[in-house]
Amino acid sequence: MQKGHLLYEGKAKSLFATESPDILWMTYKDDTTALNGARKTAFTDKGKLNNQISTLLFHFLEKNGVQTHLLETLSDTEQLVKKVTVIPIEIIVRNVIAGSFAKKLGVAEGEELAEPIVEFYYKEDALDDPFINDDHVRYLKLATTAEIAELKELALIINTLLQQRFLAADILLVDFKIECGRLNNQTIVLADEISPDSCRLWDVNTKQKLDKDVFRHDLGDLVSVYQEVLQRLLNKTTEV
Amino acid sequence: MQKGHLLYEGKAKSLFATESPDILWMTYKDDTTALNGARKTAFTDKGKLNNQISTLLFHFLEKNGVQTHLLETLSDTEQLVKKVTVIPIEIIVRNVIAGSFAKKLGVAEGEELAEPIVEFYYKEDALDDPFINDDHVRYLKLATTAEIAELKELALIINTLLQQRFLAADILLVDFKIECGRLNNQTIVLADEISPDSCRLWDVNTKQKLDKDVFRHDLGDLVSVYQEVLQRLLNKTTEV
Repeated sequence: MQKGHLLYEGKAKSLFATESPDILWMTYKDDTTALNGARKTAFTDKGKLNNQISTLLFHFLEKNGVQTHLLETLSDTEQLVKKVTVIPIEIIVRNVIAGSFAKKLGVAEGEELAEPIVEFYYKEDALDDPFINDDHVRYLKLATTAEIAELKELALIINTLLQQRFLAADILLVDFKIECGRLNNQTIVLADEISPDSCRLWDVNTKQKLDKDVFRHDLGDLVSVYQEVLQRLLNKTTEV
Repeated sequence: MQKGHLLYEGKAKSLFATESPDILWMTYKDDTTALNGARKTAFTDKGKLNNQISTLLFHFLEKNGVQTHLLETLSDTEQLVKKVTVIPIEIIVRNVIAGSFAKKLGVAEGEELAEPIVEFYYKEDALDDPFINDDHVRYLKLATTAEIAELKELALIINTLLQQRFLAADILLVDFKIECGRLNNQTIVLADEISPDSCRLWDVNTKQKLDKDVFRHDLGDLVSVYQEVLQRLLNKTTEV
């Protein structure tokens, strides 16, 4: 497989064509952004760590019945993925109150939710990814009613699996973001990545932050924290 | 029935006790606020007009099977209403794109929606009434899953009835806000008011604004516009 021309450059990853119309070449970058891209820093090895963590988690999810776009991890920072039409919805699942959610609803950070909360955000940088509801999804023709139900169910299945996988590594999955896409046959699969860039991860005992909040709030060395997450996941390979 | 002590003072109405624990005395004020209360002006006769318009619409809805809190209109600015426990959700129904919705989703004002959109906002001044989804409603224990479905269905029934009632008066119902409450037996009924303070109303032909946007955007004399809405509704009594 050959890496072709650049198709899309995102904040933390780039997508390139290959000689197959159904396969893309994805590269992880070292760039880290906050405040919707307004703040940007490159961290050596960040892309490599996210690629390793995301590969490990996508394989785990595939093994447990979740279809993903991942075909093959090629190198430290490169993956081959199935070409999908990305559904422009950032799906957030919350298990513990944190971040913007706490502020918006006037509740304290740290409370574990009795039931996970699923939220949809319209993935549109120019609009600052606004929070939307199911009626907005239908109005914007982002997904049908049946697909909305499918996306929520998929998000909750992934949540249950990831919670267990992280907990085995003494990590609390506070919340995370996923993106999904449609294959040519319209099957919805998990796309993008799952990494400390897209999850809130806390040490289950100390509640120390092990994710991008370390960058957002200047809490220390981002790369060593991501390294810690990878190491813990590698040490605890107990599969669900 | 005697007017008792003040129980609650809102931006545009006040609620007083009566000698009956199940009945409240509601008065309409002339105050008009925008920007969540940051801007406030009193308009002579505004309270009176809203009371008349809301009375007319609540009677119309009751006649068409919608239960409301309204018992009796006592005077120009006073109503007797059933005491309800207000559900702190502002329910918005949209038929035409306007206001914050257009800005948030980057779409043009004025487009008529193929299907109405229902939105929930958490009624909490200190938080600026944040937009929430069904999971947030459950987390905040504002309503059960069954009640959420009931509220949405009620909002859409009210929308269909009001659209027809206004259209008979050559008025386009662009969007509106309702609040609901629970009676002692937990029955959910329409509470609060329906008036040009809580609706976006446009002349069906000229699209002239006939609602509180006249105040929000300094478009002319608020009271004469509210008077126009009342007069049109009184002239066209065609019931659905």
